[in-house]
Amino acid sequence: MANPKILILGGGYGGLMTAVKLQKTMNYNEADVTLVNKHDYHYFTTWLHEPAAGTLDPDKCRVEINSLLDSSKVKFLKGTVASINKDKQTVTLESGDELSYDYLVIGLGSEPETFGIQGLKEHAFSIRSINSVREIREHIEYNFARYKNERSPELITFVIGGAGFTGIEFLGELTDRIPELCEEFDVNPSDVKIYNVEAAPTVLPGFDPELVQYAMDILSKKGVEFRIATPIKECTPDGVIIGEGEEIKSKTVVWTGGVRGNSVIEKSGFETMRGRVKVDEYLRAPGHDNVFIVGDSALVINAATDRPYPPTAQIAIQQGENLGQNLVELMRGGTPKPFVFHLKGTVASLGKGEAIGLVGNKKIFGGTAAFMKKVIDNRSLFMLGGLSLLTKKVKL
Amino acid sequence: MANPKILILGGGYGGLMTAVKLQKTMNYNEADVTLVNKHDYHYFTTWLHEPAAGTLDPDKCRVEINSLLDSSKVKFLKGTVASINKDKQTVTLESGDELSYDYLVIGLGSEPETFGIQGLKEHAFSIRSINSVREIREHIEYNFARYKNERSPELITFVIGGAGFTGIEFLGELTDRIPELCEEFDVNPSDVKIYNVEAAPTVLPGFDPELVQYAMDILSKKGVEFRIATPIKECTPDGVIIGEGEEIKSKTVVWTGGVRGNSVIEKSGFETMRGRVKVDEYLRAPGHDNVFIVGDSALVINAATDRPYPPTAQIAIQQGENLGQNLVELMRGGTPKPFVFHLKGTVASLGKGEAIGLVGNKKIFGGTAAFMKKVIDNRSLFMLGGLSLLTKKVKL
Repeated sequence: MANPKILILGGGYGGLMTAVKLQKTMNYNEADVTLVNKHDYHYFTTWLHEPAAGTLDPDKCRVEINSLLDSSKVKFLKGTVASINKDKQTVTLESGDELSYDYLVIGLGSEPETFGIQGLKEHAFSIRSINSVREIREHIEYNFARYKNERSPELITFVIGGAGFTGIEFLGELTDRIPELCEEFDVNPSDVKIYNVEAAPTVLPGFDPELVQYAMDILSKKGVEFRIATPIKECTPDGVIIGEGEEIKSKTVVWTGGVRGNSVIEKSGFETMRGRVKVDEYLRAPGHDNVFIVGDSALVINAATDRPYPPTAQIAIQQGENLGQNLVELMRGGTPKPFVFHLKGTVASLGKGEAIGLVGNKKIFGGTAAFMKKVIDNRSLFMLGGLSLLTKKVKL
Repeated sequence: MANPKILILGGGYGGLMTAVKLQKTMNYNEADVTLVNKHDYHYFTTWLHEPAAGTLDPDKCRVEINSLLDSSKVKFLKGTVASINKDKQTVTLESGDELSYDYLVIGLGSEPETFGIQGLKEHAFSIRSINSVREIREHIEYNFARYKNERSPELITFVIGGAGFTGIEFLGELTDRIPELCEEFDVNPSDVKIYNVEAAPTVLPGFDPELVQYAMDILSKKGVEFRIATPIKECTPDGVIIGEGEEIKSKTVVWTGGVRGNSVIEKSGFETMRGRVKVDEYLRAPGHDNVFIVGDSALVINAATDRPYPPTAQIAIQQGENLGQNLVELMRGGTPKPFVFHLKGTVASLGKGEAIGLVGNKKIFGGTAAFMKKVIDNRSLFMLGGLSLLTKKVKL
């Protein structure tokens, strides 16, 4: 009898953790496991606000996938998924290659959700990959250089759309980086403008109000002007139209206002809500016993609040761990365990030495929270790649 | 009796050397000397191809003017010259301030000469100031970052117009820098294209043919494709049209094909040839005993060839030395000395460890020439700022 074929799509937190857990749990020759990913590296999505602002080398935020895999148990294939053919049990890549599976793990991540706001897709940046954050960093530096020759204020005016975790964390880094850029390019710091535009009535919607106030105070002191309860109406090549028609001229609009599931999933005929599939307790797509979804494209309901858990690295890693183990159980005819999310805490960085967070019911601030943030970042390195990865990429 | 007022316009090699020589030679309270410059720093124009390519920190290429001046002898004023009013013996700055003079030294440098080629002024970069080279460097890096997302070949296609010293030296640096950028942005080096387009029948027109061949061989090996005897017909936002209508698509066109004198001089009613004033043997503008011109805006004929000396740092520094001394002679009723140019040698860098040059009649190549290039760069530092400047900026 041939080994069962396990195909994992995506080398983000969910897909990679599934592969890592699988290779730890399974025996040699128990399954043919293939991990497909667009790049030959995994990147740490939760760190990307740092290289986007230019406060961290993007190479610090990625690791070669092959260095994390035991090639005798999991094969890596570089490729971009074009479609999933559920009925044929195959996956087609953009190259035209077709891969078949017995078990499919979909960890294809997310895409920016623009809520139909005109021009956002065309004219705004988003923080979503090594390639995209390198472009944001270079774009910002280029515009500082241009400003010295052209003197147009929109070159050093920055609009961050959205005040969720990514937006707030990016603002923390950007406000650390701006003084360095002003020094490097002989720009007067008071000429630089940074706006945070958020449609919701508060930044970090749903977060503890005391922590929210702390974050706003820190970022305001660092030069951020908040436009809360103010939707972006349109994004143009020259900036944004907000609220009742006010224009903010800016050559750099970064949209962090939301994400949706990978569109390949929807296009392949799965039922989705904003591109995400509401999975069952074993992370299965409804109606498919052998198709599992992890990470940003999986929708899991928090029973306590009856609302979906927000897509985070933390939940993706826990899903990967659960699924890697369960796949082995399934192959061996054992009993899989339902997925249960254990929230370890939530910390948002506000730049160097500053953060806010909730660990259990305890609120943390400032240096303590900044330290906890590093603990969390380092912990996920250890989960994915053990001591070897931790040593290479550790945040000190 | 009031002290004579000496006004020096421009803090480039010519103007700054005039000020430095003056302050060395004159006594305290012998004259009121003012140096006016657009920036509060002097930059080393002959080094600018390096920060433009990104192989040297632009801050390495500049020094605060005040750090080179003895403020009890020479006052520094930051300002941009708008016009010279010869009849009133005053100079108007863009700020509206008017400065009067008894002796005027014009060292306002050069501007790119585009020979009427359409679109060049609007769409091509030129290597001419700290601000301009920072923009070129950032533009190149930004386009590498964009290439990873947009995949348009014109983002990593580079057209250098002109194969004179600046063009060739920039190519030397750029070809050193490209492999680093490919590494940093995960770009396949064979995707990058570098064209050198020159209307004259050879690169480095007028230079020794054996040295020219050596330079072309080195740069060809480093990836440069030469289009010699091929004029640029037009520059557009998308690239250049060359020769008989061929289009090279490129987002980065750097024009190094020629310079002309500063347009302020022409607009102020001096007779000029391509913006340069043919000065007499004491560097005086014709018809003006108290107006001197040094550097790129001065045209001095080489008696041996009956052609103008090309504008170089070397000749500008020698003019400044001669003029600084002569101004003291004039104030004291002494006899000024005619300016005579002594060519110390000519070396063109081809990147790290490679150069070509002529010292006297001796041709030099490779490592020897690269070493001589550094000697020349370091020597001009010493001339302008003594051991203190040499120590700060020395090229090792």
